[in-house]
Amino acid sequence: MSSSPAFCHAEAFDLGAWTAVQLALVEQALECWVAPPGQVPPSLAEPMRYAVLGGGKRMRPLLALASAQAVGAPPEAAVRAACAVELIHAYSLVHDDMPCMDNDVLRRGLPTVHVRFGEAAALLAGDALQALAFELLTPDDGSLPVASQARLCRMLAQAAGAAGMAGGQAIDLASVGLPLNSDQLHQMHRLKTGALLQASVLMGAVCGPVEPHSLNALTDYGSAMGLAFQVVDDILDVTADSNTLGKTAGKDAAQDKPTFVSLMGLSSSQNYAQELLSQARASLRASGLKHTAPLQALADKLVNRIF
Amino acid sequence: MSSSPAFCHAEAFDLGAWTAVQLALVEQALECWVAPPGQVPPSLAEPMRYAVLGGGKRMRPLLALASAQAVGAPPEAAVRAACAVELIHAYSLVHDDMPCMDNDVLRRGLPTVHVRFGEAAALLAGDALQALAFELLTPDDGSLPVASQARLCRMLAQAAGAAGMAGGQAIDLASVGLPLNSDQLHQMHRLKTGALLQASVLMGAVCGPVEPHSLNALTDYGSAMGLAFQVVDDILDVTADSNTLGKTAGKDAAQDKPTFVSLMGLSSSQNYAQELLSQARASLRASGLKHTAPLQALADKLVNRIF
Repeated sequence: MSSSPAFCHAEAFDLGAWTAVQLALVEQALECWVAPPGQVPPSLAEPMRYAVLGGGKRMRPLLALASAQAVGAPPEAAVRAACAVELIHAYSLVHDDMPCMDNDVLRRGLPTVHVRFGEAAALLAGDALQALAFELLTPDDGSLPVASQARLCRMLAQAAGAAGMAGGQAIDLASVGLPLNSDQLHQMHRLKTGALLQASVLMGAVCGPVEPHSLNALTDYGSAMGLAFQVVDDILDVTADSNTLGKTAGKDAAQDKPTFVSLMGLSSSQNYAQELLSQARASLRASGLKHTAPLQALADKLVNRIF
Repeated sequence: MSSSPAFCHAEAFDLGAWTAVQLALVEQALECWVAPPGQVPPSLAEPMRYAVLGGGKRMRPLLALASAQAVGAPPEAAVRAACAVELIHAYSLVHDDMPCMDNDVLRRGLPTVHVRFGEAAALLAGDALQALAFELLTPDDGSLPVASQARLCRMLAQAAGAAGMAGGQAIDLASVGLPLNSDQLHQMHRLKTGALLQASVLMGAVCGPVEPHSLNALTDYGSAMGLAFQVVDDILDVTADSNTLGKTAGKDAAQDKPTFVSLMGLSSSQNYAQELLSQARASLRASGLKHTAPLQALADKLVNRIF
């Protein structure tokens, strides 16, 4: 496979340039779709827009767009999927940061939503962002086939819900101070962050024509990436400082939260992240898809990031 | 119209018997679909089930089922729509009751979810219930055509989101102590409770074959019912006691919240509720639908209820 055109293309792929183009699309779409002036009460529109438009790495939208391009999906559909997963991510951060959850006052270097707008506004903004995610996936303008709409809503609902992200957060809450074993830690993260990252990849793919065996391979890629993301997050929590992270570093250890680093040590965690990256690359090769350069480059960057 | 078979049928219609049958369907479906044992982490499943399975009038599911029957929709589809609107309603109550919102400790005569399970669990349970509503609308077992799935998700997302329920709650929060005029009060309630009640009616209808003019008439019926529900709620807040209501009576007045009663007085509010009921009946007659007896009886009961 290493001599195939796809792989050669990957070698020369400019992730920075690609990302700039995709981010412009995503930011423009979010700017347009999230609580536009005049359509939503200002007391709700402001915290919604603050929560979403304040930046962020947009890892999930980038995965969705990369995956959509791998299967040749129409950009209009892909941008909807990309924004929908980002809205779910954004709402989860707003609710996670609240005093009854992680009680975080800083996010991306700025006051969190409840600090800036109050707890009630943060709660409602998060709720409205979740609803908006499903609204974006169900346009009545013909830009997305109804079969895709239904499938995308199903995937997002499952990834966000009790057997996905919300379930993982519940396990996380219940596990503070408990000695989780490796299986339990994996299960928590598979749900808490893995489900939505994996859904990002798959939702991008189902915006276009995708064969079952390719979708299976992308499922494996998404699974490895979801886990790798969390392993690297745990590593950075002990190796980076708060300014670099844009959030409070060392917090997991201070709260006695189980992490991959606390379970397997720093060095083994770093090896594990590289192993997951290898798995992700192998899955892309197995997918049979030709335009996987963005997905491959994103995997490299996600694992080798320093913030 | 008063001599038509549909109207004669309405005269003889036994709402109690009809309701018992529908409620059995809804309760059975919710019991089956909401966080079934083994599929969801117990720390999340328990508050989710407590929030949903603890009873309630199930007004929204009944409206959805009545509307579905008016158009001859398949029961399997209608029950999904009925449960989805109830899950959105249930999650909104969980979040509304939290200390940062209404800070209510009693709901249907029982401790509210955050009192029973803690605030973090209540927050997550509400979030997961919203996701579950969309999951119920997007089965992959062929029980609901994909076009209906997409349409139902769109309607529910719009009714629940920033230009619907969540938007109305934001206006409500921002309006405490302010002298709202009639237009502002109507707008708040059109969003806060009206949007989801109206969506219940319309979602039931689009589960089956429905002509545009019938859907328009049902839109008017749903609008009148949504408003009537809130007017009656405001009336009961000053005329009923807490035991009858199953929640704290007199709370709106105590919190200086604007209500229809505070704006137009008790007697005018009662007349207004009857006027809305007349509008709802007229809309049903205009719908051209034959089997509107349940919708008509529900309207009568909703306006003339004593709790």
